[in-house]
Amino acid sequence: MSTRVAVLGATGAVGQRLIQLLDPHPDFEIAALTASSNSAGRPYREAAKWRVDTPIPEGVADVTVTETDPGAVPEDVDLCFSSLPSSVGAAVEPGFVEAGYVVSSNSSNARMDDDVPLTIPEVNPDHLGLIEVQREERGWDGALVKNPNCSTITMVPTLAALDGFGVERVNVSTLQAVSGAGYSGVTSMEILDNVLPHIGGETEKMETESRKLLGTFDGAEVHDHGAEVSASCNRVPTLDGHLENVWADLADDPTPEEVAAAMGEFPSLDLHSSPDPLIEVFEAPDRPQPRMDRMLGDGMAVAAGGIESTPNGVQYNCLAHNTIRGAAGASVLNGELLLEEGYI
Amino acid sequence: MSTRVAVLGATGAVGQRLIQLLDPHPDFEIAALTASSNSAGRPYREAAKWRVDTPIPEGVADVTVTETDPGAVPEDVDLCFSSLPSSVGAAVEPGFVEAGYVVSSNSSNARMDDDVPLTIPEVNPDHLGLIEVQREERGWDGALVKNPNCSTITMVPTLAALDGFGVERVNVSTLQAVSGAGYSGVTSMEILDNVLPHIGGETEKMETESRKLLGTFDGAEVHDHGAEVSASCNRVPTLDGHLENVWADLADDPTPEEVAAAMGEFPSLDLHSSPDPLIEVFEAPDRPQPRMDRMLGDGMAVAAGGIESTPNGVQYNCLAHNTIRGAAGASVLNGELLLEEGYI
Amino acid sequence: MSTRVAVLGATGAVGQRLIQLLDPHPDFEIAALTASSNSAGRPYREAAKWRVDTPIPEGVADVTVTETDPGAVPEDVDLCFSSLPSSVGAAVEPGFVEAGYVVSSNSSNARMDDDVPLTIPEVNPDHLGLIEVQREERGWDGALVKNPNCSTITMVPTLAALDGFGVERVNVSTLQAVSGAGYSGVTSMEILDNVLPHIGGETEKMETESRKLLGTFDGAEVHDHGAEVSASCNRVPTLDGHLENVWADLADDPTPEEVAAAMGEFPSLDLHSSPDPLIEVFEAPDRPQPRMDRMLGDGMAVAAGGIESTPNGVQYNCLAHNTIRGAAGASVLNGELLLEEGYI
Amino acid sequence: MSTRVAVLGATGAVGQRLIQLLDPHPDFEIAALTASSNSAGRPYREAAKWRVDTPIPEGVADVTVTETDPGAVPEDVDLCFSSLPSSVGAAVEPGFVEAGYVVSSNSSNARMDDDVPLTIPEVNPDHLGLIEVQREERGWDGALVKNPNCSTITMVPTLAALDGFGVERVNVSTLQAVSGAGYSGVTSMEILDNVLPHIGGETEKMETESRKLLGTFDGAEVHDHGAEVSASCNRVPTLDGHLENVWADLADDPTPEEVAAAMGEFPSLDLHSSPDPLIEVFEAPDRPQPRMDRMLGDGMAVAAGGIESTPNGVQYNCLAHNTIRGAAGASVLNGELLLEEGYI
Repeated sequence: MSTRVAVLGATGAVGQRLIQLLDPHPDFEIAALTASSNSAGRPYREAAKWRVDTPIPEGVADVTVTETDPGAVPEDVDLCFSSLPSSVGAAVEPGFVEAGYVVSSNSSNARMDDDVPLTIPEVNPDHLGLIEVQREERGWDGALVKNPNCSTITMVPTLAALDGFGVERVNVSTLQAVSGAGYSGVTSMEILDNVLPHIGGETEKMETESRKLLGTFDGAEVHDHGAEVSASCNRVPTLDGHLENVWADLADDPTPEEVAAAMGEFPSLDLHSSPDPLIEVFEAPDRPQPRMDRMLGDGMAVAAGGIESTPNGVQYNCLAHNTIRGAAGASVLNGELLLEEGYI
Repeated sequence: MSTRVAVLGATGAVGQRLIQLLDPHPDFEIAALTASSNSAGRPYREAAKWRVDTPIPEGVADVTVTETDPGAVPEDVDLCFSSLPSSVGAAVEPGFVEAGYVVSSNSSNARMDDDVPLTIPEVNPDHLGLIEVQREERGWDGALVKNPNCSTITMVPTLAALDGFGVERVNVSTLQAVSGAGYSGVTSMEILDNVLPHIGGETEKMETESRKLLGTFDGAEVHDHGAEVSASCNRVPTLDGHLENVWADLADDPTPEEVAAAMGEFPSLDLHSSPDPLIEVFEAPDRPQPRMDRMLGDGMAVAAGGIESTPNGVQYNCLAHNTIRGAAGASVLNGELLLEEGYI
Repeated sequence: MSTRVAVLGATGAVGQRLIQLLDPHPDFEIAALTASSNSAGRPYREAAKWRVDTPIPEGVADVTVTETDPGAVPEDVDLCFSSLPSSVGAAVEPGFVEAGYVVSSNSSNARMDDDVPLTIPEVNPDHLGLIEVQREERGWDGALVKNPNCSTITMVPTLAALDGFGVERVNVSTLQAVSGAGYSGVTSMEILDNVLPHIGGETEKMETESRKLLGTFDGAEVHDHGAEVSASCNRVPTLDGHLENVWADLADDPTPEEVAAAMGEFPSLDLHSSPDPLIEVFEAPDRPQPRMDRMLGDGMAVAAGGIESTPNGVQYNCLAHNTIRGAAGASVLNGELLLEEGYI
Repeated sequence: MSTRVAVLGATGAVGQRLIQLLDPHPDFEIAALTASSNSAGRPYREAAKWRVDTPIPEGVADVTVTETDPGAVPEDVDLCFSSLPSSVGAAVEPGFVEAGYVVSSNSSNARMDDDVPLTIPEVNPDHLGLIEVQREERGWDGALVKNPNCSTITMVPTLAALDGFGVERVNVSTLQAVSGAGYSGVTSMEILDNVLPHIGGETEKMETESRKLLGTFDGAEVHDHGAEVSASCNRVPTLDGHLENVWADLADDPTPEEVAAAMGEFPSLDLHSSPDPLIEVFEAPDRPQPRMDRMLGDGMAVAAGGIESTPNGVQYNCLAHNTIRGAAGASVLNGELLLEEGYI
């Protein structure tokens, strides 16, 4: 039997991707769509300016959008996927959880809260254990679970694969696609024949979120990973797919072949949206490329390549689809893990 | 009185830029243009498919192109600017020098030869002293001087400015413009909505050339700088201007303000093509940007910005125009230095 | 039972698309791949630089490429799809037909020959009758059938739909994607932040091919349609999908709604690759758009929109995927028609 | 002695271009800058997000911005350049003229009003005579003069040059740069790898404005030119420069050479911003191109090329810089004409 789900913030770019992924999903059934009061009361077809590359699903087009309020969502909904702007997320997500809903959220608020699990299912599924801490501390029936920022998600699986060699320090330069800023986030005048060498708040997210994701959960709290992480974030004229150049200093001294093997063999999970392999490793030094490789594993795989030894460890490139693996797909996958682990 | 100069490889992209820069130059007078045998004997206007953003200079359009052979260049030419493909450069440049010409070359051959000066005039003008070694060893009357690769030139002035703080290690990620590959080097199918995360030979050039440029000349040889340099090179959909994200590990622990001051105050030279300041430092974290800032100092300045401290030193971005400061302008500036220093 | 087919010119851009479309095709089975002598003897995986957006089919990767020669193709092959450069096509296609093969060709040679059918199956299937003329005149056992140029195919189905209103004159402006020029046909330096307002030979193709396609076959010859056609062809920075602005002067005076109905109801065929509807008509004036709409009908539909009356007829826009409907898919569809009509 | 001028709407994209053009102008002196109440009271340097490709002029950076109100502009200002949003222009421009100011406006409001001159100085300078009508009818001391829309300006000089051959009908397809929509008018998600085949209101502007510009002023009113004009407007991924494909049906039957001569010899004016020649005619069929040719005549020239005869007249392409000749430069040139003709 399908789990009935709501999409909070259903009209935005990530909300549309959520609908695209959830509509054919075997485990989930879309039961409610919420948006701001401008859109509430209107059929979804009118409320959203649909821009995803497949047509608006038939069963969704005529659903009446409701306000983003726990009282407006049917009680038989068990799971809410949230892609609200972070300020809205901060304001309304706690109310949903208090009302008993499990919320799998892509919004950036609360990601670094001590009692909020920040998870990539293949990397740190055990961090879901924080839900017990969260419920106890906050007196909540539901649960709030976050996925990280798109640029963080692209890199962290590869670092997890390398951590057997002892990751000590990470420098990472990102070449991020414009869709990461939302539909209107980057103007054409800004980016045609240009690069923007700064994305507000992005370096901090990569540095702090990575250490939490790679950290250790001891049953009571998450201890951050000790690696230093320094990021430099750039916006480039690509539509989808964040490419990243990573230098990882390692305690051990693996060969490029050993690094490739550790990545290529890093285990995936037996969840609907988890690709196999999780990390696709290219031998050709000019891959992965955003346009060529962003749809690997239906947009849920991480691609890696250009692996070379350095005196201190290894240099390589990685890539993931920023609005699938890096946003909507990440939330859906967290929802699958929550279901599998019995939180729903 | 003007020095009479020849442009070797005058029809290519860098050759055209050389002509654009040399035609109005106060110290130089174009006396000969050479190209492959296909073009020899034809007026320049027909031999070259002119694509630079200013019209073909009047005095140049009707010059008859000659073969790239010392015998075909007038004897009263004192200085040759070479933008030959590297294999051609390797084959013919020695003959020009043997015949007594001073050659300021942008071609990549011979850059790392022990007795060939590789110079950025504002950074290591004293390396021209290698010319004496070169003449002695090879029995040459002329001289062969090289400028580095465009991606190297963009970064090295900033590292020279930082070297008072003790540069120990450098990681650099480049976002390079398509013009760096020549007019037909990158196809539109490769780069629209895409990034190429590999440029053949580029990382090696950045790593070896940087250490030579920052090295010490003791009167007999150049001792490479000891810093480790690791580069990751990307081609992005911009026309001109290489942007680079640099992590420099430093022995000292300067503040971002001290780093900015060291860069902004790094001395320029009193040469026609040397901009003042050499390094333009931006406070706005989203600058420099390729389209906005590549023409600073008529394309000869280096721009820097986004300076932030890291636990090991500093992270910042730098930018230069790859076909002016990074190629044709670099050769012209070396020519100015050769003239100033009495080698011509 | 599947028809065994060969792909002539299998390593090029259209050749790769042909393989992508033919590999899963229910009626055809790839039995041979040919290319130039450089590639002959090598496994396809090595001979082709595969760049299509799905992986190289398993059954194809290890096929040994043969020379493009009738003697090198197995005798049990019944149908050859040709995507040879036009000069090569002109040289070798007649030999294949003489040897008894039916050739469905995308190459531009011979398209305007009096006894060669130039067909878009949904538009002028009866023109296949020219095969009888061709066999008689040339003494051939096989048959040579052509599909038109990509920019022609995009427009002609809409004109066919309008011909009930009496098409008298057509002005068409094209905004063509770079893939139409082949993988290396347009350099990045030419097209970034630019438009090329001229495509060699393209206006002539649109003008002559359209009149032949819309012409009448009387059992012996094709009489060109009488409409004047004048085209202006531009290359724009898009990857796939030719967009065209059309002014059609009409004898009648239909409303935009009548024009939309005539297009939307123009009949498709019951062939595997023929989409239903053939022409997708948009009400929104800002559609169709290349990136949003090129994959309609798996890349085989024509999209139309922006229909407005003019004093002389109608103005509208149309769009099709230039390497699917406009090239490889067009040849495959001609192959399906040849099979259906008993020519194979 | 310089004429003191104000820029109304000085912080926007066209306002910045106006300042860039007016600062070094020999006849004009910037005396006031106005903007919305958000910006009023702040130094221009802070009020505007400066994005033009030359630095903010020194004399302008510290000017205090005032509200866009006649009372806030110094009385010794004689001429106002307006680049206000059209709704704001409609609301405030009449007040300025009533208060005695001469206003040269780029805003689209009132362009088609019977007593408002819509002028391109080289095309219809005599239409300034409408100012007398305007003053009489409205009881104004000042004057309101408009320049047309950027896409109209690009084409009309070429049609004026052809009108000796009897222009009867015009079909025009535009390929317009993103800057025409203002800095934030087109998002990167809309335009990367895409074309937008519709620009709201643009076809109507081209059709009505062209007929007024080419019309005849009889001392009392302008009689529209009789040519039918039908436009189809597209936004393409270029930064600056509108390229247009034009079909002009003519009463006469000139050769392409006669068309080229008529364009190339169409007279310019002896005004500071009027280029000579006004229309630069290219023989190469692949010119003009936006990136290569938009800066001809310092961005004030119109380029034409690809001239070919059709059965009904001629087909050709034209190009102009949309924010210089098509907007800010057009207003400045109208100001120069107003000064020359004694209206100031």
